[in-house]
Amino acid sequence: MVAAGSLVAMPVATPLEPTDEQIALVTFNDDGLVPAIVQEEGTGKVLMMAWMNEESLRRTFAEGRTVFWSRSRQELWRKGDTSGDRQFVREAYYDCDGDTLLFVVEQEGNGACHTGNYSCFFRAFGPEESTSSDVREA
Amino acid sequence: MVAAGSLVAMPVATPLEPTDEQIALVTFNDDGLVPAIVQEEGTGKVLMMAWMNEESLRRTFAEGRTVFWSRSRQELWRKGDTSGDRQFVREAYYDCDGDTLLFVVEQEGNGACHTGNYSCFFRAFGPEESTSSDVREA
Repeated sequence: MVAAGSLVAMPVATPLEPTDEQIALVTFNDDGLVPAIVQEEGTGKVLMMAWMNEESLRRTFAEGRTVFWSRSRQELWRKGDTSGDRQFVREAYYDCDGDTLLFVVEQEGNGACHTGNYSCFFRAFGPEESTSSDVREA
Repeated sequence: MVAAGSLVAMPVATPLEPTDEQIALVTFNDDGLVPAIVQEEGTGKVLMMAWMNEESLRRTFAEGRTVFWSRSRQELWRKGDTSGDRQFVREAYYDCDGDTLLFVVEQEGNGACHTGNYSCFFRAFGPEESTSSDVREA
């Protein structure tokens, strides 16, 4: 007999296999970091932007989950290890200059923001009444 | 009599009116810059990421078009003045830390990338066959 709870599909981490040529096209800044935009699969919602060094980028690919470099804590930061709200990478892109990355993820749980908002971009510029409690979907 | 060509709706620039409190929450880095993600209205496509200083941010709000700071040329860069492919700002957000911005725009013409691709994120990490000529829509 199967308990109802076990019927909930759990996200599966799928490693990505970039080529060496692709990784060589990534340009890290003077601090060895590259900005990584995280977008939700399906909704297109932009969830957050954080930074990766080369090790966190390689771990992101190897584990199929986003791993960042925390500039404030100066340590690797695997998204969701503390909050439980993991990000499973489904697609990853590098831009024309190779100096910005875009990860399309399956976001687990309560979202990406430590404030409890689903997206970190939950505040709009403009008259106060236009600020929603959550960013618009695309 | 109206010529057919004049029936094509041209995008209209609509200035945004952020409050002083909102602008004060934007954190610029040591170089006086903040990263600005640009997302297309409607499709949710992430088009590009570029940098703004305070002057370019204020001009973006005042003109209703994206204005960036070119780090390579060290000058203000109003998107589309050279290419003709302007970005009309429809919504703008600041993130939980105030150190990243998100602009939702109406993208004109051939897109955002100087390579001719609609989005700057036109190359996917992974086996070469998975790299599309244009990034997926959300």
